[in-house]
Amino acid sequence: MTHPVASSASFLLSADPPRCHDGAVTTSARTRPVPPDIEIAEAAELTPILDLARERLGIDPEHLVPYGHDKAKVSLAGVRALESRTDGRLVLVTAISPTPAGEGKTTTSVGLADGLAALGENAMVALREPSMGPVFGIKGGAAGGGYSQVVPMADINLNFTGDFAAIAAANNLLSAVLDNHLHHGNALDIDPRTVTWKRVVDLNDRALRDVVVGLGGVANGIPREDGFDIVVASEVMAILCLATSVADLRERLGRVVVGYTRGTKQAVHARDLNVHGAMTVILRDALAPNLVQTLEHTPAMIHGGPFANIAHGCNSVMATRTALKLADYVVTEAGFGADLGAEKFVDIKCRATGLRPSAVVVVATVRALKYHGGVNVPDLGTESVEAVTAGMANLRRHLRNVRDVYGLPPVVALNRFPSDTDAEVAEVLRLVEAEGVRAYEATHFADGSDGSKALARGVLEVIEEGSADLQFVYPDDMPLAQKAEAVATRVYGAAGVTFEPKAAKRLAAIEAEGYGHLPICMAKTQSSFSTDPTLRGAPEGHTVSVREVRLAAGAGFVVMVTGEIMTMPGLPKVPASERIDVDDDGRIVGLS
Amino acid sequence: MTHPVASSASFLLSADPPRCHDGAVTTSARTRPVPPDIEIAEAAELTPILDLARERLGIDPEHLVPYGHDKAKVSLAGVRALESRTDGRLVLVTAISPTPAGEGKTTTSVGLADGLAALGENAMVALREPSMGPVFGIKGGAAGGGYSQVVPMADINLNFTGDFAAIAAANNLLSAVLDNHLHHGNALDIDPRTVTWKRVVDLNDRALRDVVVGLGGVANGIPREDGFDIVVASEVMAILCLATSVADLRERLGRVVVGYTRGTKQAVHARDLNVHGAMTVILRDALAPNLVQTLEHTPAMIHGGPFANIAHGCNSVMATRTALKLADYVVTEAGFGADLGAEKFVDIKCRATGLRPSAVVVVATVRALKYHGGVNVPDLGTESVEAVTAGMANLRRHLRNVRDVYGLPPVVALNRFPSDTDAEVAEVLRLVEAEGVRAYEATHFADGSDGSKALARGVLEVIEEGSADLQFVYPDDMPLAQKAEAVATRVYGAAGVTFEPKAAKRLAAIEAEGYGHLPICMAKTQSSFSTDPTLRGAPEGHTVSVREVRLAAGAGFVVMVTGEIMTMPGLPKVPASERIDVDDDGRIVGLS
Repeated sequence: MTHPVASSASFLLSADPPRCHDGAVTTSARTRPVPPDIEIAEAAELTPILDLARERLGIDPEHLVPYGHDKAKVSLAGVRALESRTDGRLVLVTAISPTPAGEGKTTTSVGLADGLAALGENAMVALREPSMGPVFGIKGGAAGGGYSQVVPMADINLNFTGDFAAIAAANNLLSAVLDNHLHHGNALDIDPRTVTWKRVVDLNDRALRDVVVGLGGVANGIPREDGFDIVVASEVMAILCLATSVADLRERLGRVVVGYTRGTKQAVHARDLNVHGAMTVILRDALAPNLVQTLEHTPAMIHGGPFANIAHGCNSVMATRTALKLADYVVTEAGFGADLGAEKFVDIKCRATGLRPSAVVVVATVRALKYHGGVNVPDLGTESVEAVTAGMANLRRHLRNVRDVYGLPPVVALNRFPSDTDAEVAEVLRLVEAEGVRAYEATHFADGSDGSKALARGVLEVIEEGSADLQFVYPDDMPLAQKAEAVATRVYGAAGVTFEPKAAKRLAAIEAEGYGHLPICMAKTQSSFSTDPTLRGAPEGHTVSVREVRLAAGAGFVVMVTGEIMTMPGLPKVPASERIDVDDDGRIVGLS
Repeated sequence: MTHPVASSASFLLSADPPRCHDGAVTTSARTRPVPPDIEIAEAAELTPILDLARERLGIDPEHLVPYGHDKAKVSLAGVRALESRTDGRLVLVTAISPTPAGEGKTTTSVGLADGLAALGENAMVALREPSMGPVFGIKGGAAGGGYSQVVPMADINLNFTGDFAAIAAANNLLSAVLDNHLHHGNALDIDPRTVTWKRVVDLNDRALRDVVVGLGGVANGIPREDGFDIVVASEVMAILCLATSVADLRERLGRVVVGYTRGTKQAVHARDLNVHGAMTVILRDALAPNLVQTLEHTPAMIHGGPFANIAHGCNSVMATRTALKLADYVVTEAGFGADLGAEKFVDIKCRATGLRPSAVVVVATVRALKYHGGVNVPDLGTESVEAVTAGMANLRRHLRNVRDVYGLPPVVALNRFPSDTDAEVAEVLRLVEAEGVRAYEATHFADGSDGSKALARGVLEVIEEGSADLQFVYPDDMPLAQKAEAVATRVYGAAGVTFEPKAAKRLAAIEAEGYGHLPICMAKTQSSFSTDPTLRGAPEGHTVSVREVRLAAGAGFVVMVTGEIMTMPGLPKVPASERIDVDDDGRIVGLS
């Protein structure tokens, strides 16, 4: 994560610490201004991961599969060996509708886990694995930032333990076998024009969005239109993240629908191509969750990373469940804002698995509140308490959704940036308090756990109150269109949902095929409660138009696509790859 | 490797062991008939790799990067720490011109190293990493076979330590950055029609051979013809295998030529796109060589795997050099027959690095000799001493090339198959002896080191004689066309070389660009000394027609393409992926 570096540490030395703050701001040995992420990460002294696992988590070394000295997978046998342990408490981190720069959800998740650990609690963080593609584009890495990072940061952002490569290989083996089937006589009578299964690559590569494959003559197969998505958009990624065992993984992969037959328009599944077993073999190691640590040696599970638009946007069930067996408090994160990531966390992940969060941290920034209050990006550094007040409409709706729709107690983490003024910060805390919700300024980016202990204490208090009573937004047996209606009206504040004719037809077909009981996965812009990214704040009475419906039969949800959803990013004119390099000593530079 | 399973063990109990044979054939605890490779491999008791490295090789654990308990990389710091050690002796394993089924070169390399170890020598084997694509096609895995395998076999054949995935990512990042450059104004004025850099994937996928990318409108870049090769065909693979340090890797990646400018037809390099640093970052871990073991706990380096046609076809320089610091005897393998793999080993790898083999093992089979003697594949199981005699022409030329052209002492390993008769085996041994070359029947597939000790003893004798005096086939300063002529006439028995007009023009351009000093890399069928795969035995007086010339400026050679060279295999009608699966206990089945 990139974060504006403090030119002075004035906010750290504020004589009047905001309420709910821990008070004791310790700058400790941390450098000012905060150095680049990669410099902090590479300078960190890590605890050997096998030691950390044994001493902090009680995992037998035989149940760990090391990847170097700082990364390990908990073997599937190791996961099974933990089954009899009691589960810890789960804390979900979500956010206000984000600005283009992001609000620091991952950084806050790491900071909160470190804060809990600093209070003496047995805490862990469970996060998504970053995708390598965006590392070379604009977004950069996704292993936290500043003094709230998971490490080894370069490894986590690049090849890590090979999970994404395995997902790409499994996804693309299915494509190769499918095209091979078309080439060798097409016994299943697949209509090549109906193939929905795309190839994937873990890069930002716009030139691969729309391609024609099978050119060059008879020996090269059947020409057809195809395209590549980025790996995180693969249904295989969503499947891996929802699978609970090798057998469940294999079963889900077999259920994947790749296209339809010519004559009778029957769905063709991966199992019909007899490739799901080989896909499972490729993915067997990837199913085991990855263990690393934060800069403060808090254990961290980093595993799986499905998109938060066409997929459910949270880390793997294997990792979350394993973490809950290992720690008393597990902090996990869902993608985008609380209208998207948290809703899917509840309606897809919790529904499928029985997971139940005890508290929800909603990350907000003064910048995002001002943005929703009408300030444009270039002016976000200028103080405007009025804009903060106006922008509260967005955060307020998220808080009410979390509490009243999802049935979970929210806590606000105000992720403080150097440009935030004390008056703006005080206004946020005041407005949140007026909602009956705890709010804490958090400066973990600059201060590590010293900047998040107050937040951690507040989260513990909320958990202690025991008010969580998770509610789904819709029941299983509601028709798919009504499920979309329920999310749109109850969560987005919309008047209703319309379906474009093609989408309505597809929806009917999916229900006729027997998938009406599945949860839905809304693919909507993260920038607004509406489907129009320019509508800030808390728009009401808008209409959600579903233009496309996609079945993810293996993952087990039906995607409702609203607006343009990008499943293959591009690179900017000057991509980050231009500044990422090795120095003369072979050290990585330029990674952020 | 697949291998016909003995229906009876008659040949193992032969009352009259062939000459040069060790005599004591011990069947030991090995199962008859020989079980499938995966069953043997999964039943193996492995020595923890850190223990093996410390006890057998004296590597400090801090210099190892474990990948699980059975695989490790020797860190680049660890490689440097070995520099002051004395080098061991290098044994190159090559082969007769192979039949479609392959002659068991990898299996023999493993068996020989085990045989040397069984004789009490400090021996290692250094091999290429298998490509995952063919595992799901016809060929299957490439980690040896029977009781001569490297393990963990499934890991090695699948995702292993992620090297191939890193190579694919680095290769494809260059493609993405190139297309991004075209999209964002094309400041370098690259002519999209001249782009020679292809994308890669580690699968057999014919539909990707010829594609059009950049379709779908303005946002998706510039449409152009493109194609995917399999990862082992990537120049990045060849570069990784020839690089001697991170700095050398970076420098070589920067030299890669991706295409030419429109106006002045200047070469455009990866460094012009400023992407070679990021590619190096992706590949940094992959450069460190991988350490595993054989079924008999002989240490094995498995690292890198460039194609043997458009690339040089041997494992990495890093691995070979490291192995030579760790063991007294290192057995390594070059792709295809001795006309291709061994020639490139000598003229590319030895020339670039100073490596000098002490002996060359030429693997032959009765089946291949009969094939070269005119017997067709379906009849290879029927005894024919006459065909063996006739087919000796092929082996004879390889032996003379090794001895007289490369200046290295050959030893023949007759890799015995169950269908071979004693009379056929005796004839091979007699004919080879008539050449003044040692020959040994080897039954390591069924017997492990019990079946290769005689071969190992013979190799030690040859090394002891000290007759190796490596000669290049051509000097550096010879023009490129004459280098091709030298290989064709001296090694292939050809009358000469012709260049198709396009190839001749390209050759002239490459020399004009200053690459005339590079070695050449002949891309020729492995099935014949000629460029016609149907010409068996030892054809003479044929003409080698070069139809295309490719510059691999980063790898540092000029590829001369004769005939059709397949750089992206396809899948058969019933691919191996259909039988590869996990069983109810999550164990892999069907891998061979």
